[in-house]
Parts: sequence; structure tokens; C-alpha cells
Amino acid sequence: MKEIKVQTSTHPYKIMIGEKLRFNLSEVLSKKYASVLIITDSHVSKLYLKDVQNSLANEKVFTAVIPAGEQSKSIEQFYELHTKAIENGLNRNSLIIALGGGVVGDLAGFVAATYMRGIDYIQVPTTILAHDSSVGGKVAINHALGKNMIGNFYPPRAVIYDVETVHTLSKAEIRSGYAELVKEALISDVAFFEDIMAASLDEMNNERLISHLQQGIEVKARIVEEDEKESGVRKFLNFGHTLGHAIEAELGYGKMTHGEAIAIGMLFALGLSQKYYGVNLPLEELTSWMKANAYPSSLPQLNPNDLLAKMASDKKVLNDRIPMVLLKEIGKPETVEFTKEELLEELSSFLGKMVKA
Amino acid sequence: MKEIKVQTSTHPYKIMIGEKLRFNLSEVLSKKYASVLIITDSHVSKLYLKDVQNSLANEKVFTAVIPAGEQSKSIEQFYELHTKAIENGLNRNSLIIALGGGVVGDLAGFVAATYMRGIDYIQVPTTILAHDSSVGGKVAINHALGKNMIGNFYPPRAVIYDVETVHTLSKAEIRSGYAELVKEALISDVAFFEDIMAASLDEMNNERLISHLQQGIEVKARIVEEDEKESGVRKFLNFGHTLGHAIEAELGYGKMTHGEAIAIGMLFALGLSQKYYGVNLPLEELTSWMKANAYPSSLPQLNPNDLLAKMASDKKVLNDRIPMVLLKEIGKPETVEFTKEELLEELSSFLGKMVKA
Ligand SMILES: NC(=O)c1ccc[n+]([C@@H]2O[C@H](COP(=O)([O-])OP(=O)(O)OC[C@H]3O[C@@H](n4cnc5c(N)ncnc54)[C@H](O)[C@@H]3O)[C@@H](O)[C@H]2O)c1
Ligand SMILES: NC(=O)c1ccc[n+]([C@@H]2O[C@H](COP(=O)([O-])OP(=O)(O)OC[C@H]3O[C@@H](n4cnc5c(N)ncnc54)[C@H](O)[C@@H]3O)[C@@H](O)[C@H]2O)c1
Ligand SMILES: [Zn+2]
Ligand SMILES: [Zn+2]
Repeated sequence: MKEIKVQTSTHPYKIMIGEKLRFNLSEVLSKKYASVLIITDSHVSKLYLKDVQNSLANEKVFTAVIPAGEQSKSIEQFYELHTKAIENGLNRNSLIIALGGGVVGDLAGFVAATYMRGIDYIQVPTTILAHDSSVGGKVAINHALGKNMIGNFYPPRAVIYDVETVHTLSKAEIRSGYAELVKEALISDVAFFEDIMAASLDEMNNERLISHLQQGIEVKARIVEEDEKESGVRKFLNFGHTLGHAIEAELGYGKMTHGEAIAIGMLFALGLSQKYYGVNLPLEELTSWMKANAYPSSLPQLNPNDLLAKMASDKKVLNDRIPMVLLKEIGKPETVEFTKEELLEELSSFLGKMVKA
Repeated sequence: MKEIKVQTSTHPYKIMIGEKLRFNLSEVLSKKYASVLIITDSHVSKLYLKDVQNSLANEKVFTAVIPAGEQSKSIEQFYELHTKAIENGLNRNSLIIALGGGVVGDLAGFVAATYMRGIDYIQVPTTILAHDSSVGGKVAINHALGKNMIGNFYPPRAVIYDVETVHTLSKAEIRSGYAELVKEALISDVAFFEDIMAASLDEMNNERLISHLQQGIEVKARIVEEDEKESGVRKFLNFGHTLGHAIEAELGYGKMTHGEAIAIGMLFALGLSQKYYGVNLPLEELTSWMKANAYPSSLPQLNPNDLLAKMASDKKVLNDRIPMVLLKEIGKPETVEFTKEELLEELSSFLGKMVKA
């Protein structure tokens, strides 16, 4: 088992990464809680809820199962979980456990952040992507007019990552999560990046998985420690996300996984970086790796002007300039502002290649 | 003008108490904001919104007016204000101003706490009660199953208290707010208490008002500084509230103002304190003052068992014991636990007197 510590403005917490951790949850509870509410989704509940429940046999445990999928990060589901918590008599000394992917983590974390003005919660991620979402304390629900618009910075008390659980993920979800690992590698460390490029997502053993997740989490943890409230370096975690988010929004959510869209965004950001700095970056290597691992490598015809409008609104730009995270080299991210005109040209040529590809 | 400083775990803020402050709001903004959203209610907007808007002539100002009254502290109103904020293009560098009483302060504060995971807000209280609610960073909305169940601890950037505004309050609202001042006096300082007892709410000049508000806020500020998240001394601010909340709930919200119910709760707590400690407290003095100032001094027939159940659920007691804040003497509050049986007896005799009174 690997352990990573994270310092926050309110309290430190531990991230544990290993096998079979879901069977020993009670051991990591740092104190006796009045009661525990496990929040999970309709897919994960069938696979792992019993294990987690059994591991908390000495606690007063309640469960709540939400429908799987992004649409559960809604104000209605948020309110309903509060109803559940009140009806089960949760008090300020109760604990919420978020068992699932980023959807469960973001939603259950925000319920914990706001129930009686905040109670403890623990993240038990079950997707690869959730190595990212479970660390750093960003919790939120969506508004009809924007993703993650309503939320808090509210760090968990612990993150318990049982890597065995991710083996039941679909291939698309594995690709989605690995794209964020690629991102963390690109903004931090060549060796980590090469280690991922040498791996095939179809033949992933736990040892390698733990190593990648640990390295990815380490990158994320050090960044959020430095910039908990996202006023500086935390923005580098948006590498690939400006275009990625725009693609997700333009295609309609659910057409492509988050990570798959981000992967395409990273190709764009790498190309732009090469041109802007006049450097060589492993654009082809990443492109081949994505192909070998069945990432979508083409896009339907998208209007670059619409994408650009989405990119501008995603960054809430007030003036005409859109900030993009670029790489001077691997491990050296920087934010560079572009005018819409500059980006439009780059984007049109990029999209042209993606449609044919 | 009086100034009080409050230290919090995230940032310090100033409370300014004085006359005509609503005309000079722009002077207290500590930085240039991208935009400002003033949230107020349907009563206050008619009286003071123009003044505040005019005082921010150099800012990009938007306004949102909610229906006056407790029912606006709802999940629907919360979501609608987020809609408004998004539609007006508020970003992380925007400011929310809460112009109104505790309802506006609690709701607008919670919107600020959660919009894009938290933006700055300023409290501009316009009720006497809001001297209490605007200080300390407790923000919340109600759940159908419980008051203030969904919220955050999220301190404002400043509290700007223009005491001139409270002169348009109804008599009942003045009584409501003064009950909290009496509470702060009782848990802190004899001289402050006597100063209020010497005052008539019908003949309140600004000088005296400022002095009382300043002293009350000082009490509240020192307590929340010591115990921001309400794990200890902050509970003393609940003096009179255990029974007071139960009366509000039993009568149905809106039948009596919050402070009027709390005033009755304080009479009960004072009587219980006298008996428990065998001391003399100014129970009669407070009773006469309340009569002279037209506080409700009688109650309809209420079932003591129902009240007791409400008191237990208000305090989320898990065992059989209900904690009550009592006074050993003025300025010396303590929490004492009672069994339901003990309280039932006291309560029945208290209610008997209140019905006849
Ligand atoms: N808070 C943050 O910092 C942060 C960072 C990145 C992403 N996010 C959020 O994370 C969310 C996406 O997370 P996600 O990709 O984990 O989505 P998700 O939670 O919807 O999980 C994806 C799918 O996999 C299923 N699933 C989960 N675990 C499984 C398992 N072990 N076996 C089989 N199926 C399983 C889920 O039921 C779901 O259908 C988005 O809402 C995004 O906004 C948050
Ligand atoms: N956050 C806290 O720490 C805290 C503490 C105590 C109370 N509260 C909350 O405060 C709320 C009660 O606050 P309140 O008593 O100020 O209620 P309120 O905001 O509803 O105001 C009372 C009434 O007075 C009107 N009003 C406000 N200012 C006025 C003015 N200057 N002139 C004329 N009318 C005016 C309002 O429109 C309303 O009708 C409750 O929801 C309670 O839960 C919060
Ligand atoms: Zn992402
Ligand atoms: Zn009160």
C-alpha cells in the first residue's frame, strides 16, 4: 500500500492506494462517528457496496444509491441526499463516504460540505479518473447553465483507493481516466510520461496501475497543496481542458468521455506549444499511443467559431484574450493568452486534420 | 463610526457601524471587482436599493430582488440566484452584496459561498437582528425538514451597518432584534444588560442604538473568533434558543418573530438557572422590560411534550439528555444537560404561568 499526505488550510489528510482496501475501511476511520452514510451510484452499488458495508460492521451505517451518470450532479439530487441525511438522523458527528467515480465524489462531497454547514467525508474512488477528482477538495454540482457552477472547496478526511475496483470499468472509462494521468505526466515529468507511453491499457496489472496512480496523485497533491483555491498553479491542471471542455459541450455531454475529449485537447495544446515556443514535444508519440489504445482520433465536423465561443465562456474571459496552458517542455507548463483570431486559425487547421484522420 | 475587527481562519474582516454608510459603499471595497450583484428583498429594495446602487456608480452593478420573508431561504430561490449570477456573467472576481435582514444575509451569503466554489461577499444588514446574523460567517438555507440545514461557514469580506436603516423596521422586528442584544448582554456583561433595561424601544436614538449594536457585535465577534465552527463557546449564543426554536416551530413560523420567541425562551432559561444554581437573576427586571416594550408575554395552550420533542430534535440529541445554556450569573453561561423528565416538569409549570399571564 502507498500513502500520500496532503496538507490543506483546515486539516491534513491521507491518500491510501492499494489492493483490498475496501474490505478494511473501519481501520482508517480516525474517530468514532455517530453514524455513517455511504453514497454510491446504481452501477457501483451492485459491485462494491456490500464489501464496504461489511467492512463497517461496527458502525451505524445508512446507504443512498443515486442513478449512475453526470445528470445526478443536479440540484434535485443534492437536495434529495440532504433529505436522506436528515431522515437518517445524521448529525455533526456523522460521516459521509463517497463510493464511486467523480460524479459520486463531487456530489457526495458537496452534500458533506453543506450538511449542517459541513461534516466529515471520505472519498473511496472506484474509477481511474477519480484519482484526480477525489484529491484536492473541489466538490460541486452542475447548473443547467454550466458545469460545476455550484460548489465548495472542502477537502475530505481521507482518500481510500482500492485499485482492484477499477478492473470492472469499461474500456472507455479506463481511457478517460488515463487521459488525466497523461496530463499529470505532461505537466510534471518526462519519466512518468514515458512510463505511460510504454503501457498498454489492455494489459494493466495492479502494480503498474498503482505506480501510475500514485505518481498522478502525487502531482495533483503537490499542486493543490500549493494552490488550494485555484488562484495560480492549480490552473496548470487544466492542460488540454480548454478545448476538451468545448468539445464535450459541442458534441453534447456523454457522446465522448471527459478524458477522451481532454486527450484531443492535449493534442491541440501540444501542437500549439510546439509552434509557439519553437520546440519539439512528443505529439506523435502521444498520437500513436492514443491510436494503439483506441482513443477516438477523429471528430465530426465542428464549427471552430462555436468551439471558440465555448472556450471563451469556459474561461469566463472578459476581454478578448483566451488563456491556454502550454508546455515549454515536458514538466514546464505556462499560461499564455491568445486572441480569438489567433486561436481560430490554429483551431481550424487542427479540426481539419481531425476530421480526415 | 465604530469599527470592529474579526479574525477568521481564512481572512480578517471589518465591521463598520455608523450613520449614512449606505451612501459610501464604494469606499469600503478593498479591491476592484469585475462586477457586483446586490441581492435584497422586496421590502428593502423599495427603501434602500437606490442609495446603495448610487454609491457604487463606478462599478458594474446587477441587482436581484427576492420576496421578503423566511420562505425565500429555499433551495429554489438559491438556485434561481445562481441562475441570475451566471446570466449576469459574474466570475470569480465578482462581489455579492447582501442588503437586508438575516434572510437576505443567510441566503445571499450561501450563494456567494457556493458560486464557482466561493466568491467574495459583503453584508449590509438592515435589521437589528442582522447585527447577529451578519457576523460570524454562518450562511444557510432551510430544508423542508429543518431550518438552516444546508449551509456553510463562510465569513464575509466586510459588514457595513448603516443604523439609519433600522428606523423603518416594524415594532415587532425591532423587538425581535433587541431580544438578541439582550441575549448577548446576559451571557457577557451586567453593565450592558442594565443599559438595555434602561432603554425604551420606542425612543431609540442613533447614538444609543449604535452603542448597543456595537456592544452586541463585540460579544458575538469575540465568541466566533474563539470558536468559528461552533464546537464550543459559540453554543452559548443559543441562550434562550432551545425553547425559543421549539415555540417558533410549534406555533408555526411567522406567528411570532424569532426574537420574540427567544425572549420567552430566555425567561425560561433564567428561571431554570435560578433554580439549578440557587442564585438570583434579573428575571423580573427582564419580564417588566419585555412588558413595557410590548413583547408577547403569554402563549396559547401548547403541549409541553410536543415542545420537548422539538427541543430534543433541535439539539439532535442521541441519548436522553437535552443540553441547555444556563447562567450561573450574568456573563457566566454554562451548558447543563437535563433529562426529558426533569425538563418536562419545569416546562409544564412555566407554560402554566405563561398561559395565564
Ligand atoms: N473534483 C474534481 O477535482 C474533479 C476533477 C475531474 C473531474 N471531476 C468530475 O468527475 C466526474 C467524472 O468522473 P468519472 O469519470 O469517474 O465519472 P462517473 O462517476 O460517472 O463514473 C463513470 C461510470 O463508471 C461507473 N463506475 C464507477 N466505478 C466503477 C467500477 N469500479 N466498475 C464499473 N463501473 C464503474 C459509473 O457508474 C459511471 O457509469 C465529472 O462530473 C467531473 O466534473 C471532478
Ligand atoms: N447566520 C446567523 O448566524 C443567523 C443568526 C440569527 C438569525 N439568522 C437568520 O436570520 C433570519 C431572520 O433575520 P431577520 O429577523 O432580519 O429577518 P428578515 O430578513 O426576514 O427581515 C425581517 C423583515 O423586515 C424587513 N426589513 C428588513 N430590513 C428592513 C428595514 N430596514 N426597514 C423595513 N423593513 C425591513 C424584511 O423585508 C422582512 O420582512 C432567519 O432566517 C434566521 O435563521 C441567522
Ligand atoms: Zn479533467
Ligand atoms: Zn437567534
